[in-house]
Amino acid sequence: MNGTHEHNQPIIIFDPYPRSKELIFRQTQWQRLQSLGQIVCHDENPIPSEIFDRHLPDAVAVIGQTDLPAERLERATKLKAILNVEGNFKPNVDYDACFRTGVQVLSAAPAFALPLAECALAFAIDLARGITIADREFRAGREKYGLESNREAFLLTGSEIGLIGFGNLGRALLPLLAPFHCHIRVFDPWLPDEFIKDHHCEPAGLDDLLSTSKVIFVLAAVTSKNEGFIGERELFLIEPGSVVLLMSRAAVVDFPAFLRCVEEGRFQAATDVFPVEPVPPDDPVRRIEGLLLSAHRTAGMREAFYRIGDMAVDDLALILSGLPPVRMQAARRETVALYRSKPGRSYKKNGL
Amino acid sequence: MNGTHEHNQPIIIFDPYPRSKELIFRQTQWQRLQSLGQIVCHDENPIPSEIFDRHLPDAVAVIGQTDLPAERLERATKLKAILNVEGNFKPNVDYDACFRTGVQVLSAAPAFALPLAECALAFAIDLARGITIADREFRAGREKYGLESNREAFLLTGSEIGLIGFGNLGRALLPLLAPFHCHIRVFDPWLPDEFIKDHHCEPAGLDDLLSTSKVIFVLAAVTSKNEGFIGERELFLIEPGSVVLLMSRAAVVDFPAFLRCVEEGRFQAATDVFPVEPVPPDDPVRRIEGLLLSAHRTAGMREAFYRIGDMAVDDLALILSGLPPVRMQAARRETVALYRSKPGRSYKKNGL
Amino acid sequence: MNGTHEHNQPIIIFDPYPRSKELIFRQTQWQRLQSLGQIVCHDENPIPSEIFDRHLPDAVAVIGQTDLPAERLERATKLKAILNVEGNFKPNVDYDACFRTGVQVLSAAPAFALPLAECALAFAIDLARGITIADREFRAGREKYGLESNREAFLLTGSEIGLIGFGNLGRALLPLLAPFHCHIRVFDPWLPDEFIKDHHCEPAGLDDLLSTSKVIFVLAAVTSKNEGFIGERELFLIEPGSVVLLMSRAAVVDFPAFLRCVEEGRFQAATDVFPVEPVPPDDPVRRIEGLLLSAHRTAGMREAFYRIGDMAVDDLALILSGLPPVRMQAARRETVALYRSKPGRSYKKNGL
Amino acid sequence: MNGTHEHNQPIIIFDPYPRSKELIFRQTQWQRLQSLGQIVCHDENPIPSEIFDRHLPDAVAVIGQTDLPAERLERATKLKAILNVEGNFKPNVDYDACFRTGVQVLSAAPAFALPLAECALAFAIDLARGITIADREFRAGREKYGLESNREAFLLTGSEIGLIGFGNLGRALLPLLAPFHCHIRVFDPWLPDEFIKDHHCEPAGLDDLLSTSKVIFVLAAVTSKNEGFIGERELFLIEPGSVVLLMSRAAVVDFPAFLRCVEEGRFQAATDVFPVEPVPPDDPVRRIEGLLLSAHRTAGMREAFYRIGDMAVDDLALILSGLPPVRMQAARRETVALYRSKPGRSYKKNGL
Repeated sequence: MNGTHEHNQPIIIFDPYPRSKELIFRQTQWQRLQSLGQIVCHDENPIPSEIFDRHLPDAVAVIGQTDLPAERLERATKLKAILNVEGNFKPNVDYDACFRTGVQVLSAAPAFALPLAECALAFAIDLARGITIADREFRAGREKYGLESNREAFLLTGSEIGLIGFGNLGRALLPLLAPFHCHIRVFDPWLPDEFIKDHHCEPAGLDDLLSTSKVIFVLAAVTSKNEGFIGERELFLIEPGSVVLLMSRAAVVDFPAFLRCVEEGRFQAATDVFPVEPVPPDDPVRRIEGLLLSAHRTAGMREAFYRIGDMAVDDLALILSGLPPVRMQAARRETVALYRSKPGRSYKKNGL
Repeated sequence: MNGTHEHNQPIIIFDPYPRSKELIFRQTQWQRLQSLGQIVCHDENPIPSEIFDRHLPDAVAVIGQTDLPAERLERATKLKAILNVEGNFKPNVDYDACFRTGVQVLSAAPAFALPLAECALAFAIDLARGITIADREFRAGREKYGLESNREAFLLTGSEIGLIGFGNLGRALLPLLAPFHCHIRVFDPWLPDEFIKDHHCEPAGLDDLLSTSKVIFVLAAVTSKNEGFIGERELFLIEPGSVVLLMSRAAVVDFPAFLRCVEEGRFQAATDVFPVEPVPPDDPVRRIEGLLLSAHRTAGMREAFYRIGDMAVDDLALILSGLPPVRMQAARRETVALYRSKPGRSYKKNGL
Repeated sequence: MNGTHEHNQPIIIFDPYPRSKELIFRQTQWQRLQSLGQIVCHDENPIPSEIFDRHLPDAVAVIGQTDLPAERLERATKLKAILNVEGNFKPNVDYDACFRTGVQVLSAAPAFALPLAECALAFAIDLARGITIADREFRAGREKYGLESNREAFLLTGSEIGLIGFGNLGRALLPLLAPFHCHIRVFDPWLPDEFIKDHHCEPAGLDDLLSTSKVIFVLAAVTSKNEGFIGERELFLIEPGSVVLLMSRAAVVDFPAFLRCVEEGRFQAATDVFPVEPVPPDDPVRRIEGLLLSAHRTAGMREAFYRIGDMAVDDLALILSGLPPVRMQAARRETVALYRSKPGRSYKKNGL
Repeated sequence: MNGTHEHNQPIIIFDPYPRSKELIFRQTQWQRLQSLGQIVCHDENPIPSEIFDRHLPDAVAVIGQTDLPAERLERATKLKAILNVEGNFKPNVDYDACFRTGVQVLSAAPAFALPLAECALAFAIDLARGITIADREFRAGREKYGLESNREAFLLTGSEIGLIGFGNLGRALLPLLAPFHCHIRVFDPWLPDEFIKDHHCEPAGLDDLLSTSKVIFVLAAVTSKNEGFIGERELFLIEPGSVVLLMSRAAVVDFPAFLRCVEEGRFQAATDVFPVEPVPPDDPVRRIEGLLLSAHRTAGMREAFYRIGDMAVDDLALILSGLPPVRMQAARRETVALYRSKPGRSYKKNGL
């Protein structure tokens, strides 16, 4: 990278922290990335400012979520793309400047949609049929057979379904639900009714959805505008016997109220997300019977991480050849500043 | 039933033991059954022979699995249908005589296919993603987050699937698998290759299926010809990291070998069936880590039992109006004598 | 066939007239048939009685629609199957005797379902969008562009659909309609409502279906009980602007009334069937503008005829190995005598 | 619009020529548009410059394809969106300036995708089965029945399909093809292979696609870079007996060579587009037997035009409330300048 004869190749700054090169790139895909430019690679921890700043004027792309305030972007005159290899948009970038100058801002969120959707479906059937609880009872010698163990069970087929949020996750889940021939309500205040109808779902208000759905998937991203929008009042609208799948972010619900509802048997639930992660060892959440516990693990599969690398190289290749990216999620000028997801986990310490 | 003015109505003998009227009939459906004939109803235990024999000559239908040897069938000159409200065919009927005289012989097996198929799908994703194990670990304070907990996880989407047996269960499962775009091999020695190809699956030999499939669904009925056909040799063909769902009958596998494979980590598995049920309290099966335990409960849902009643009334109505039944499973002359399922469970004691 | 050393091989009488060996058998499939038994093959015209009667006592199968009255069946003591290579059941067989003695009676009707269903879908869109008429106008120099030519056009997507008859044809068509997300009503008096609902359609009465459906598929077989059941009164229930696809048999409608409706512009229609075929040269049906004309050609594809042979060999192989057939359509005791389809066309003269 | 008390309402300039208000707006949708701002409506012909320029500084949206060079955009300081109610992007807008300042540039192309896709499917089956030709022959008294008329016919089910272009049209067609279980190749040089694989199609080079596909859908938009890219050499790669559906723009093929191929019987084809429209009265294209003729009418349905209005109002409402549009097609900075579609047809003269 410090040679001189290669000074005509475009510079790609690779600063994936808290991700890592090993986490997101198969060897073949990394080689393909190398064919696109000279890579300034900093993998163990965030790139030091002086290195970043030295290369920025020559960089066509930043892969990662390095701080890019206005003053940096001004010097990044060759920059064409910021490819965030996490699933979010942090407020450390002057997005307006990017949109103005035509820098593509992309996130890896779509890589996680299908892994999460598969789990969401399995969670729904698990709760509808008591699968995990029945296994636990069996191990404790308390299993019941046949109908005796199915008193609350219901078929997913034909159930009333509610999707709260209809972005990447909802659209990945929808095809998986198709063979169950359910009536599906969707609440998403960013989408017009007809958009939802075009997906053969019924647009619904939040209260209507909560009070009529037997299976409720919470798939909404957390933004500065919707934190805790599923509060106690909303949770109390849910019919007894329903099941709730909290898949996206804990912050969209009043989490303590959510847990109380499950403890009191108002509904059963599964959650993949928690307000504090890792969950403290003595957290009483671990003992709630009707709650299927998943340690923020439905999205973060090996395949999903590699998919990030695949998508990033594909999109960067398109951008460098003058075409629009199509695989990662493009930031939208109107909403990019609203997202409030927490940063992802660093895997580098444990060799991932 | 003992009036005289009603002697022109057809007699329907209702002897559902070990099922019961309450188990399989909603009130409305029972009323509809009553409109089809005079019901000789015996619900608490098997019908006494003298009652049965008295009404048999006038009976157009027997709902249940009463003994019907040749000598009884000879006297049942008005009999048009035997509607077994269990999912099997017992060897206590002279089926040849039925076929000869045109008595319809029907079983309720299709009522259970969809409930079981939904669970089978959830089991597959559960094992592919470690859902129940992750919940158990979480409760024990040993949960891992994200990729760390996903080292063995794989997506169902795009997986190599194997279906062993392609009767009611396989055909109910197939549509649920459609959105996962898997390559599906089917082994069913009763079906020609083209039949399987018409369902967009690949016909396969058992060994080929076992050695190439990542997710193996065992859905074969047990017959006098296939007991234990998935033996140790066959189980050893399964690739490490695969998952096996034993959904139909324990007797089709060498069950002890099957358990050993799971204990030794050759593959993970779920089973809904056991050689002896209820499973003894101290059975070591309860402690096998990689085995998802389900106490013969995937099929026996409230809805499935009512569906039996619905199907029986629908088909009896068709038969009595001179049309062929379409909802229950018709016995086939060639195979009816081969089935070896155990009788179902009686629910009457516990008020079901 | 006249050797002596082969006298232990089962005899298969092949009398496919008006079909022929070349029409329905690929070479490989014919060889497979030969491996199942000794074939008494008579291909140019109906088998002479003396030949048939000589071989009948040794025959395990008759492929064709040879007369099989009681007296013949009595002598056919080894007979296991009658495989009619047409799509119907003629009244020249003592079906009751077959059911009594366990002779399988099968027809090739399912071979035609998919070819016909594909055409039916194309016909529906053709009429909804005026495709064939627009081509005709274009050739006459009278084409209109864009919206001007689309004043009556409607999308199939989201339309109200009606299926009259829900046998082989309806069930082959249904999956093709799935991506159009239509509301589908089904009228079939042989089927209970729940059977139709299990296919995610709405059971409907004939009048209700006719008066509410924008696209009406007539798919009912003709029986001794339903000839002309779609009469003038029924046709007048159809809403202006609807389209009617007559796919199964002309005899189920009042054909002259049907044509009048199209001529008067009550609805547009396509028909693949006619009361007399070939249609007389001067038949005014040839000049009806709103009628898409198809000369009984939607089912009879090269592939469909070969499929008959494939199915027959597959099913015969199953039967001879003691298993139930699964590919051809099994006659049902209750309805086999009701069918009134005309015999198929002979292709042998023109070398097919 | 000339009142004074309303001066705080946003101005929406409506200049839809060659479209018209009546063409694209249902009454209810027009009322909804009025609720979003004060509409400067000019409907009969292009808006006069002085009116446009007077209102431009106060306009939040321009609905139409008015010239918007740099100097006009500079004065349009409140402008948030340009909603082109045609399906294209004309070169009369300084798109770079729009991207720089965050003006949304949208087209109505998606409104036409489904209507066109339904026709494309029907065209494919029409050619595979000879539907329109058979109707023509029938009217001429030359119809053939059954297999005789099906010598070239093939099933769509299981066919090798090729999609040239995978934008709005391809993605609308894909679900309609799903029940036919075809192997589908896609050629689209703007898309990475994995994107195509995610849609369960096979990415293919143009030559490979042409030489292996039985059914070829031409769905590519015409750009400054791809005019005539399907030339004589490419057309000669197509296998005899294949069918070609030219759905998007005539300019992507060497049209005379395309017609010659059809005349010579190399393949059959359908075309909805022509180099010159209306086609001259004496154009020999009208006499080509194997060509299904459609006068640029597959997209322009009544419903599609109303859908434009629906989409425009939905997206404008989102934009004015600070959310990103989701229904119309957003111009992409990299490609917006490449499109070379001809302008649409004006319908105002004939009262549409």
